[in-house]
Amino acid sequence: MKKTRIGIVGYGNLGKGVEAGLKHSPDLELTGIFTRRQPDQLETLSPAYSIDKLIDFKNSIDVLILCGGSQKDIPLQAPELAQTFNTVDTYDNHNEIPVHFERLDKVAKENKTVAVLSTGWDPGLFSLNRLIAEAIMPKGETYTFWGPGLSQGHSDAVRRVKGVKNAAQYTVPKKERVDKVKDKQPIHYNKKEAHKRVVYLVLEEGADESKVKEAIISMPDYFQGYETKITILDQDTLDKDHQGMPHGGTVIRQGKTTDENTAIYQFGLDLDSNPEFTAAVTIAYARAAARLAKERQYGAKTVFDIAPGYLSPESPEDLRRKLL
Amino acid sequence: MKKTRIGIVGYGNLGKGVEAGLKHSPDLELTGIFTRRQPDQLETLSPAYSIDKLIDFKNSIDVLILCGGSQKDIPLQAPELAQTFNTVDTYDNHNEIPVHFERLDKVAKENKTVAVLSTGWDPGLFSLNRLIAEAIMPKGETYTFWGPGLSQGHSDAVRRVKGVKNAAQYTVPKKERVDKVKDKQPIHYNKKEAHKRVVYLVLEEGADESKVKEAIISMPDYFQGYETKITILDQDTLDKDHQGMPHGGTVIRQGKTTDENTAIYQFGLDLDSNPEFTAAVTIAYARAAARLAKERQYGAKTVFDIAPGYLSPESPEDLRRKLL
Repeated sequence: MKKTRIGIVGYGNLGKGVEAGLKHSPDLELTGIFTRRQPDQLETLSPAYSIDKLIDFKNSIDVLILCGGSQKDIPLQAPELAQTFNTVDTYDNHNEIPVHFERLDKVAKENKTVAVLSTGWDPGLFSLNRLIAEAIMPKGETYTFWGPGLSQGHSDAVRRVKGVKNAAQYTVPKKERVDKVKDKQPIHYNKKEAHKRVVYLVLEEGADESKVKEAIISMPDYFQGYETKITILDQDTLDKDHQGMPHGGTVIRQGKTTDENTAIYQFGLDLDSNPEFTAAVTIAYARAAARLAKERQYGAKTVFDIAPGYLSPESPEDLRRKLL
Repeated sequence: MKKTRIGIVGYGNLGKGVEAGLKHSPDLELTGIFTRRQPDQLETLSPAYSIDKLIDFKNSIDVLILCGGSQKDIPLQAPELAQTFNTVDTYDNHNEIPVHFERLDKVAKENKTVAVLSTGWDPGLFSLNRLIAEAIMPKGETYTFWGPGLSQGHSDAVRRVKGVKNAAQYTVPKKERVDKVKDKQPIHYNKKEAHKRVVYLVLEEGADESKVKEAIISMPDYFQGYETKITILDQDTLDKDHQGMPHGGTVIRQGKTTDENTAIYQFGLDLDSNPEFTAAVTIAYARAAARLAKERQYGAKTVFDIAPGYLSPESPEDLRRKLL
C-alpha cells in the first residue's frame, strides 16, 4: 500500500507533536518539516527544509499539516498553500472561522485541493460533539467546560505583569457546576462563573507581592470577574511542577427526550499534552484530506463535513466488523 | 421549506419514542405509524395504518424508521422495505451487522434508496466514538462500560425462572474500574469482571427464595461469573420504583500521544429513557438519510459513513458560525 506523504509547516509544540504522532500511523510518512527558521538550527528527528523550498515538494507531499499560530500564520499561510497542496489546519479564532472557510473554499475549489480547517479539540472534537448532541436532542442546553489545563495566553499575560519573572496559569472548571450539569440539575452558566483561574508565579527580586497580585486580578478580560487563586513559588518549583502542557475539558448536553425524561450526553478529554493531542487530531484529518482529494471532493471542509470513517486507516468492512 | 416526511414501522417502546421525539424537530413531520396489529387498537397520537397499506404511501413518505426488533423483524423487514423506501434501523446484533449491511447495500443500490443501519447508541454513538478515539490515538486501549441501566433481556431471563412473578435487572459497571481507567491507570478488563448485575424481583406465592436465587446466579451467559445482587420486594414497590427504562454507559480510550503522555478520551450517556434516546438518534439519522437520497448517494450507510453535518437541520454556514 502506498503511504500518504505528510509535510509539517512550522516546528513549534504542535509541529513537534505531529512529528512524534506520525510514528503511530504506519499508513502515513513524513516527507519533511518546513520552517521559516534556519533548517539546520532545528533539532528535528526528521529532514527539515526552509519553507521557501516547499514548492519543490509539490509532487512528493500529499497533505500539509499547518502548525503555525492562528493569529498571524494560518490566515495568510493556509489560503496561499491551499493553491498547491491539500492542507489541514487548527485555526481556532472562532469568530473568524466563517471568513477563513470562505477564503479557503474559493482557493481550494479553484485549484482542486482539499483544505481542512479548524481541527483539534476546540474547535474540532468539541464542536463535533456540540453538533451531534444538539442534532439528536434539539430541546436542551449544551455546556462547555475547559480545563483543568494550562492556558498559554493567560500565562503570557501574567508574565507581562511588572514584577513577575515567570508564571503558569491554569483554567479550572468549578467541579460543583460540572457535577450539577451531569446530575441533570439546572444551572445558571456563564464562562466566568463556571471557571476559576489558578496562577503559579515567580516574583522578580524586590517585587511588591501585593501589587503584583492586584495587577493580575484586576486585568480586564483575562482575570477580572474570575475567581483567581495566586500562589508564589520559586523558579525551581515552577520548573519542576509546571513544565507540562496538560489540558482538557468537557462538553455536556442536558437534553429532553420528552418533557419528562432527560438524557445527559457527555464528551470529555483529559490530556497530559495539549499540543500532542491536537497534533494527533490533525494527523487523522490529514488522512481524511488525502482520501477526499483522491475522490475529487475538493474545497474547504470542517469536522462537520467529513464522515468519521475517513479518519481511520481501516477499511469500511473492517470498521463495521470490529467497531460498529 | 418542505418538511421531510417520516413513517414509523412498529409501535413498541422505540416507535412511541420516535412519535414523541419528532415533535422536537420542526423540519420533520410524521406521515403515519404502520403496524402489524389492528391499527384502531393502538393508542397512538398520530394516524395509524396496517403495515399492508405501507406501499400506498410510497410517494408520501421520505424515510421510514424501522422500530421492530433486531432478532426477528429487522433482518427481514429492512431489505424488503429498502426496495421502496429510504430506511433507518437500529439493528443491534453486532456479529451479524456485516451480513445485514451487504444485504441492504445490494437492495438499496439496485433500487436507488438509502438504508441507514445500526443507529442508536450501541451500535451507533458508542461505535462512532470507538472509531474516532482509535483513529486519533492508534496506540491505546478502548474500554466500553454499559449501564447503570435496565436490561430487558436479563429481566426477561429472570422472569422465566420458576417462582419469579416479576423482575427488573440492572447492569451496573463497577465504579472502581471506570475510575481507574479515567485516572490513566492500567486495568485488566473483561466484560464480566467490569460489570455487576443487580436484580429486583417479586416471588410467586410459596416460592423457595433460596432456590430462586440459586437458579438465577447459576444461569449461564446471563449471570454465571458475574457479581450478582438479588433483592426481593413486593409488586407495589417494583411497580413504583422500577418501571422506568434508564440506561447509559461510557466509552473510554486511554491513548498514548507519545510514550510519555496519555490522553483520556471519554464519551458517556446517562439516559432516563433508553428507547426515547435511541429514537432521538434514529430521527437525526432519518434527516441524514433524506439528504443523502436527495444527493443520490444511494446504498447502505452506517454512522461511520455519514458526515455529522447531515444530522442537523441547520445549514453548513450556520453550523460553522454557531457550533464550530
